[in-house]
Amino acid sequence: MYDTRPFQVPKRTIMTPGPVEVDPRVLQAMSSSILGQFDPKFTSLMNDTMELLRHLLQTNNQWAFPIDGTSRAGIEAMICSVIEEGDTVLVPSFGRFGSLLIEICERCGANVYSIECEWGQVFDPEIIINKIKKLRPKVVAMVHGDTSTGRMQPLKEIGYACRENDSLLIVDAVATVAGTDVKTDEWYIDGLITGTQKCLSVPSGMAPITYNERIEAILSKRKSIEKGLVTDINSTRDVSRRIRSNYFDLSQLQDYWSPARLNHHTEATSMLYGLYEGVRLILEEGLEKRFERHRLNERALVAGIEAMGLSLFGDNSCKLPTVTCINIPEGIDGDSVRSMLLDDFSIEIASSFGPLHGKIWRIGTMGYSCQKSNVLHTLACLEAVLLRHGAKLNVGEGCQAALDVYKNLEKTQIST
Amino acid sequence: MYDTRPFQVPKRTIMTPGPVEVDPRVLQAMSSSILGQFDPKFTSLMNDTMELLRHLLQTNNQWAFPIDGTSRAGIEAMICSVIEEGDTVLVPSFGRFGSLLIEICERCGANVYSIECEWGQVFDPEIIINKIKKLRPKVVAMVHGDTSTGRMQPLKEIGYACRENDSLLIVDAVATVAGTDVKTDEWYIDGLITGTQKCLSVPSGMAPITYNERIEAILSKRKSIEKGLVTDINSTRDVSRRIRSNYFDLSQLQDYWSPARLNHHTEATSMLYGLYEGVRLILEEGLEKRFERHRLNERALVAGIEAMGLSLFGDNSCKLPTVTCINIPEGIDGDSVRSMLLDDFSIEIASSFGPLHGKIWRIGTMGYSCQKSNVLHTLACLEAVLLRHGAKLNVGEGCQAALDVYKNLEKTQIST
Repeated sequence: MYDTRPFQVPKRTIMTPGPVEVDPRVLQAMSSSILGQFDPKFTSLMNDTMELLRHLLQTNNQWAFPIDGTSRAGIEAMICSVIEEGDTVLVPSFGRFGSLLIEICERCGANVYSIECEWGQVFDPEIIINKIKKLRPKVVAMVHGDTSTGRMQPLKEIGYACRENDSLLIVDAVATVAGTDVKTDEWYIDGLITGTQKCLSVPSGMAPITYNERIEAILSKRKSIEKGLVTDINSTRDVSRRIRSNYFDLSQLQDYWSPARLNHHTEATSMLYGLYEGVRLILEEGLEKRFERHRLNERALVAGIEAMGLSLFGDNSCKLPTVTCINIPEGIDGDSVRSMLLDDFSIEIASSFGPLHGKIWRIGTMGYSCQKSNVLHTLACLEAVLLRHGAKLNVGEGCQAALDVYKNLEKTQIST
Repeated sequence: MYDTRPFQVPKRTIMTPGPVEVDPRVLQAMSSSILGQFDPKFTSLMNDTMELLRHLLQTNNQWAFPIDGTSRAGIEAMICSVIEEGDTVLVPSFGRFGSLLIEICERCGANVYSIECEWGQVFDPEIIINKIKKLRPKVVAMVHGDTSTGRMQPLKEIGYACRENDSLLIVDAVATVAGTDVKTDEWYIDGLITGTQKCLSVPSGMAPITYNERIEAILSKRKSIEKGLVTDINSTRDVSRRIRSNYFDLSQLQDYWSPARLNHHTEATSMLYGLYEGVRLILEEGLEKRFERHRLNERALVAGIEAMGLSLFGDNSCKLPTVTCINIPEGIDGDSVRSMLLDDFSIEIASSFGPLHGKIWRIGTMGYSCQKSNVLHTLACLEAVLLRHGAKLNVGEGCQAALDVYKNLEKTQIST
C-alpha cells in the first residue's frame, strides 16, 4: 500500500546551482485559484508576462514567452524549431551543458561541428569567430554560463561575428539571467533560453525564451496548423519542412501567444502565476541592484571559502558569478560532506557531473537563495562538517572573512 | 512600461473540460518551499508519487511517472519514444484529439493509417479490430474520451485485439482518468497518458504516463546516455535508433525516475507537490466513489439542460461522462452567451473546435469543479443568460430537474 499522509516539506537552505529557494510571495501567487486558458483575465496575464520578460531579457523582440517544461524544454523548442535536417551548427562547448546542446542539435538532425575547451576554462572569442568565418554555420549554439564548471563565456564579439557572417546565435542563458547581465539585443543574440529555477527563483517547470525576426522568418516558412483546428476543409499544409515536434513547435506556440490565441496546449496556470510574480519582483528590485546583490554575496562566499583554506576550481577570469566551484581537498569524501551538510544541517550544496564528479563541490548564489544569512550559514556549517571529516582548515576564519566583505560594503555605503 | 502590481485572480466557477478548479489543499501543497531534486526527501516523494499513480491508473506497471509539460507533452513523449521512422501506426480518430494523435505520429515519421468516424460518434470496435488484423500496425494510438465531441470509445476489445496481433495500444486518457473508469492493465493498454488539469484537478503542467514492459523493451533498444554524464570516456553510443527528442526520451526519463537517478531535467518541484497531493486526495475519496460523484453530477446537469428545453449533441450511448455537449439553439450566438456567462456571472463554459465551433457548447463536470453547487449555479445562470439572448426555454425548470436528481439520490441513500 501507499502512504496516505500529506507530504511534509522539511526546512532547507538551498545553495546549489538550482533549483533554488523561492520568494514566499511567488509561492503565494502560485496558490491562487485557477483561471481558464482563454479567460480574458488569463490572456491578459499572458500578455503582461511577455512584457515583463522583454524587460528581464533586455530585448525589444516581439516574442518572449515561456515554454511549459523545464529549462531544457526551452532549449529543445528553440533548436528543433530553427534547425532542419542537415543544417550546419557550430557548438563551442565548455562544460556539461555544452554537451547537452551538441546532443540536442544532433537529435534534431543537424550537422554538428563542436569545439571544446578544457573544463574550467572558456574560449578565446577569436577561436570561435575564426571557426564561424570558416564554417559559416546556419546556427551557433552555446551556453552563456555553464553551471557544471562554473564558467561564463563573453558573448558580444561572438554575437557580432554571427550577425556579420549570417549565422544565428542561440544562447542557453539558464544559469545567468536575473543573476548577472545578459543583454539579448546588445549582444546580437537571436534566440535565448532561460529557466525559472535558478536566478529567477521561481519553481522549476518553465523555460522563458525570446527570439527575433531572423528566427521568426524561419518559423513562418515551417508553419503548419493542426488538422483538428482547421475550419476550412480545403486548406492544405506544406509538411515537407514541418517542425518535428508538435509540443515544441514555436510557430504554433507563437500563434497561441499572439492575439489569434490558436489553441495549442493548456498553458500551465499556476506556473504562469509564479513566473509573473517572480519576474515582477525581479524588476521591482531592479536588474542592476539585483546583479550587485549577486556579486556581493559571491564575493563574501569566495572570501570565506579561501580564508577557510579551500581553493577554487577553474580560471577565475571567467568565473560564473552565480556559481562557486570548490576543489574537494585531498583525502576528503565529497559526497559524504554533502550528505552530512544536508542530513545534519539541512543545507544543500551540489557535486558536479561526469569528469568533475567527486573533484569539486558547487555552491550556488542564485535568486532568493543569494542572501547574506544563507552565505554565512553555509560557511559556518561547511567548516563544522569539514572538521568532522578531518580536514585541515583555518578554523574560524571563513565566516570572519565573509563578514568583513559585508562590513566593508556597509562602510562604502555610509561614506558615499 | 509595464504594470507593476501583483496579479489579482478573480473568483470563477470553471465548468469547462479543463483546466478546472483545484482543491485548495492541492494549491496549499504547491505553496510549500522548494527541495533540491536529489534531496532524499524529494526523491522519496518521487517514488511515492509513482506508487500513487499506479493505483490511480489501475496498473501494476513499474513505470508510472509524470512528464514535465502539459498533457500533449506526455502524448509526444510516449509516441516519439516508441515510434521510429517508417513504423506503421493506426489512429482511429473521432474528434480533434484524434487528429492531434495523427499529427504527432506523422511528425515522428510514422506511416500513419487513420480511420475517422463522424464527430459525435465513436467506432464499432469490430471496425478497428478488422483494421488491426489487416494492417498489423506496430502501434494503435487512440483517444479514450475526446472532449471536443464529448464521446468515449470502449477500449477493452480493442486492447485484446492489439495484444493478439502484436500491436501496441497507446491511449490518450487525458479526459477520463480520475473521472471515469480507466483500467490500464485489464484493458491491455500498453502505454497510457493523462493530464493534470482535468479530472485530476491539479493545475495544468504535468502529464502522468504509464507503460509496460512491452514498451520498455523498445526503449531499452533505443537508449543512449548523454555525453556530459558519461564518466567512462571510452563508452560509445549507438545513435542510429536514438529517440529524436532529448526532453521526451523515455529511456532517459526512466533512468531519472529509477534508483540510478541519472540527471536529466530538474523535476518541476511545486507541480510534483501538487500532483502528489491531488492524487492522494483522489485515492482518499476512493476511485469508485469519485466515479459515482462524476456520474451523479453529470446526471443532474443533463437533466437540467434537457428540462430547460435544450438538446444534447452526439450519440448518447457513447457519451463521455465528464463532458456534456449542448447544441446551440438556432438563432443564438454561442460565443455571446459564453461571454456574458463569464463577464457577468463569472462562470466559464467552453465552445468547441473546428467544424463544431459555434454549433455546440461544452460543459465539463471534472474533479473539484464537479460538485452540486457548481452544477446548480451553471444551470440557473445559463438560463438567465439564454433568456437575455431571447431564447425560448422552459423557464425555471432546469434547476428543478437537477434538484430532483440530487433529491432522488438522497432518498436512495436513506432507503439503503
